[in-house]
Amino acid sequence: MTVPAHTARIAVSDLPSALAAVRERGLRLSCARRIVLEALYEADGPLTAEEIARSGRCDLASVYRNVEALETAGLVRHLHVGHGPGLYLPAAAAVELIVCERCGARADVDPRVTADVRAAVQAATGFTPHFDHFPLAGLCPRCAYDRQEG
Amino acid sequence: MTVPAHTARIAVSDLPSALAAVRERGLRLSCARRIVLEALYEADGPLTAEEIARSGRCDLASVYRNVEALETAGLVRHLHVGHGPGLYLPAAAAVELIVCERCGARADVDPRVTADVRAAVQAATGFTPHFDHFPLAGLCPRCAYDRQEG
Repeated sequence: MTVPAHTARIAVSDLPSALAAVRERGLRLSCARRIVLEALYEADGPLTAEEIARSGRCDLASVYRNVEALETAGLVRHLHVGHGPGLYLPAAAAVELIVCERCGARADVDPRVTADVRAAVQAATGFTPHFDHFPLAGLCPRCAYDRQEG
Repeated sequence: MTVPAHTARIAVSDLPSALAAVRERGLRLSCARRIVLEALYEADGPLTAEEIARSGRCDLASVYRNVEALETAGLVRHLHVGHGPGLYLPAAAAVELIVCERCGARADVDPRVTADVRAAVQAATGFTPHFDHFPLAGLCPRCAYDRQEG
């Protein structure tokens, strides 16, 4: 995760196009790169490096090395969730999340809502908030309830 | 920063009250604890452990140990800014920030704006966003301009 968050991203929407894009960029399509891309395109949401390694029976160091190479190539991006490890996903995935600080539960945020938030914060501060690298953090309904009761 | 983000916070608004609160809780008011509290109450905004150490000519390990003890006691809290080190501030400080992912510039966000954002995200997802532990991240006007031009 030493790759800048705003590397130009390649918009490929499926695994075959992602594999083709690796070759088109003159990168070697190693076994580990194929495993990383397969895991990310088949997942329902962002994955940790450990999850990628487990899914492909690939060693963790190799996963880290290859997500970084694929991120530099613009095919993968990462986001940060609370105190936990980084999460990886296809670069073009338009995922905007809110993550529970307590239990790690995640929910998608409707792009219309994030667009409104962006506009309100920009009008107030001049800064443009992004939610794709550092998602919104907070409490899920259950943890908010537990906290109120506790 | 292994302290849970939602330790009960003690609302003391100035340094003398904070020093008194340390004693009232039966904690020793060591030289290092005094240095940490002085630095945080005199600062214009959140400080890194390095900045606290520099301000009080105190060693860094001692700063880390004592911000943690003061956080457990409810007098100090921390927040996370981008990929950078944690930042510390008095627990009661009602600071809500947006931080530039590129250059680290910070701006306060009006509490009325964060209240609106909280309501909109809660209505859409059921989750309650908090901005006091993981502040909003984005681009400051200058970095947004540079990115557009570059």
